Amino acid sequence: MSLNIARHTLAVPGHLDLTGGGRLVDLQVAYESYGTLAPARDNVVLVLHGLTADQHAAGPPWMEGGKAGWWDVVIGPGKPLDTDRFFVICPNVLGGSGGTTGPASTDATGQPYGSRFPVVTIADMVELQRVFLDELGIERVHAAVGGCMGGFQVMEWLARHPQRIGRAVLISATPSTTTHNLALWSVLRTVLQSDPAFRNGDYYDGPAPDTGVGLLAMVGALFWMSRETLQRRFGLRTADGTPPRYTIEPDFAIEHFLHGIRQSAAGRLDANSFIHLTRAIDYFDLSRDHGSIEQAFARATAPALLVSYRSDWRYPPEDIELLHIAMSRAGLPSRHVVLDSPVGHGAFLYDFASLAPILAEFVNSPE
Amino acid sequence: MSLNIARHTLAVPGHLDLTGGGRLVDLQVAYESYGTLAPARDNVVLVLHGLTADQHAAGPPWMEGGKAGWWDVVIGPGKPLDTDRFFVICPNVLGGSGGTTGPASTDATGQPYGSRFPVVTIADMVELQRVFLDELGIERVHAAVGGCMGGFQVMEWLARHPQRIGRAVLISATPSTTTHNLALWSVLRTVLQSDPAFRNGDYYDGPAPDTGVGLLAMVGALFWMSRETLQRRFGLRTADGTPPRYTIEPDFAIEHFLHGIRQSAAGRLDANSFIHLTRAIDYFDLSRDHGSIEQAFARATAPALLVSYRSDWRYPPEDIELLHIAMSRAGLPSRHVVLDSPVGHGAFLYDFASLAPILAEFVNSPE
Repeated sequence: MSLNIARHTLAVPGHLDLTGGGRLVDLQVAYESYGTLAPARDNVVLVLHGLTADQHAAGPPWMEGGKAGWWDVVIGPGKPLDTDRFFVICPNVLGGSGGTTGPASTDATGQPYGSRFPVVTIADMVELQRVFLDELGIERVHAAVGGCMGGFQVMEWLARHPQRIGRAVLISATPSTTTHNLALWSVLRTVLQSDPAFRNGDYYDGPAPDTGVGLLAMVGALFWMSRETLQRRFGLRTADGTPPRYTIEPDFAIEHFLHGIRQSAAGRLDANSFIHLTRAIDYFDLSRDHGSIEQAFARATAPALLVSYRSDWRYPPEDIELLHIAMSRAGLPSRHVVLDSPVGHGAFLYDFASLAPILAEFVNSPE
Repeated sequence: MSLNIARHTLAVPGHLDLTGGGRLVDLQVAYESYGTLAPARDNVVLVLHGLTADQHAAGPPWMEGGKAGWWDVVIGPGKPLDTDRFFVICPNVLGGSGGTTGPASTDATGQPYGSRFPVVTIADMVELQRVFLDELGIERVHAAVGGCMGGFQVMEWLARHPQRIGRAVLISATPSTTTHNLALWSVLRTVLQSDPAFRNGDYYDGPAPDTGVGLLAMVGALFWMSRETLQRRFGLRTADGTPPRYTIEPDFAIEHFLHGIRQSAAGRLDANSFIHLTRAIDYFDLSRDHGSIEQAFARATAPALLVSYRSDWRYPPEDIELLHIAMSRAGLPSRHVVLDSPVGHGAFLYDFASLAPILAEFVNSPE
């Protein structure tokens, strides 16, 4: 069958009381779905996206303005999350910029929230998703699947509403953030906030802080790409292979690459949304919020598949093994698979081959 | 004896034709010296500074406005570079901001160079140092010593004027830059250039681009400090140890630390100088400029001490071993010492104990 893709925005009734205090009203959730909901509503796979992604998880580039779904290799007919069997739903997160309530949304006064958008947590994201599933009449999902920040959300689902999750897949997701990630997000937020166009977050009636967004992408590239990859791809070559021109302007191939990233980043990220989503990551800490990692899973029974990548120093296998140990102690049937990939943290997005059969087997196994 | 410290600025006659084309005139070199020049002028140790340092290499904090010399543990009476025996000279590099001709210097029109300052190379720095030593009447130095960019200069001395160097000490210095360093400098320069106050480098008649300088320091901290050090010092603690405040403002200890670095960086670095010195590092490549590393040392005879640190992934021991091999092939008596330090690249500045006896023995050994 072909991919049956649908896009919706759902108004969610009531309000959401936030972890950090305050309340959001007039909430909405933008989402995409793929496949067909079974009459028994028992074939739902909830896919939860990471920091720089959104609800557009599947679909080839020609279906939506040149932009493929961020997990199109995973979701579709005959793919690991097989839409001939499963009804896959991917909601944009609370605080996101894809249409779910976030900093660019208008509040009751009709003005964009901007600087007035409250801090939200991973738990708040999950609470909005819970009401969202209620609205769709989905009591229990066959599986919840997420990488990185998406994996954090799966953990909060297991901690808060364990009876609604049939299986859990957590990829490259640790039980809390790390000091280095705190540091990196702090620096990247400051890069955005230092752009004069940012205007304390109230930029929606003027030019976007695209200088800051471009710098953020450039700084980020130093972390997303390994030194070995940079070395192999660019070496010390000049852009056109000629002798050095002795100029302050970009001369080396690596410089042209980085400036290309900077220039193409403009308009592809909402600064406020990045700030709020990284802040939610900062505050994610299962032990602090639930007493211990083990206690967080005390009520959960869903089988869990944990996946990490040996080269992912930002979300390292050792930290993910702590999850595995805590889940085992809490009585959850869990499995931790450590894969090899030169891509590191982004491997579940860009080097999916080794994960594909493991994911397919796990989501298709009988309960 | 006490430290006999002297500060000078020397006008250098003639002109300097640059590697990248163009010519600089009305040159001057600012330098400090420690100890006493022997009547035979044969006790000179030339200390060459790195990127973020200057000619203020020695002296306790109380001698100059609270700022200790960057290598005060190394230079002084009874220290490894013993000023009771040696006359130690540290010149500010060409393109620097310590008083040697650089972007903030005025040109023939009486205006600061700013955006008109030409690209200079490590070789250009050495050529200016050569004329500078001529002016001082110093034909040959007992030893030339440098770390990182200072080590690059020592290599160019060995390649260009080998007969003038008695001994060479190269610390944490590789025979060329690396792709990752090219990338890092490119990003940090762009951070500076993106500050509206930078005004294409012509900011000397207005406010300095201190927002950019602060961001640079903050981004740099992610590279100068190891993840392990950050983890150990800050963990996931809030600044005051209280529960999280759920705010976009700095809340965690690591955030307060990074913002402290940002705030204290303002005024401590000249943006143009940083841009030009990193560009000189970018263009440093012994193989490209001299045919091969081995050929670069074809005429050199000075014994060389190479020092690297196992944890220094930016200037790794493997790359420094390439220097050692090439020097051996070129017939130079060289020794490569690999030390352990958690500090990584900055170890020669901040964790000097293991290097001290090795350096002292080498510079005091008979020729």
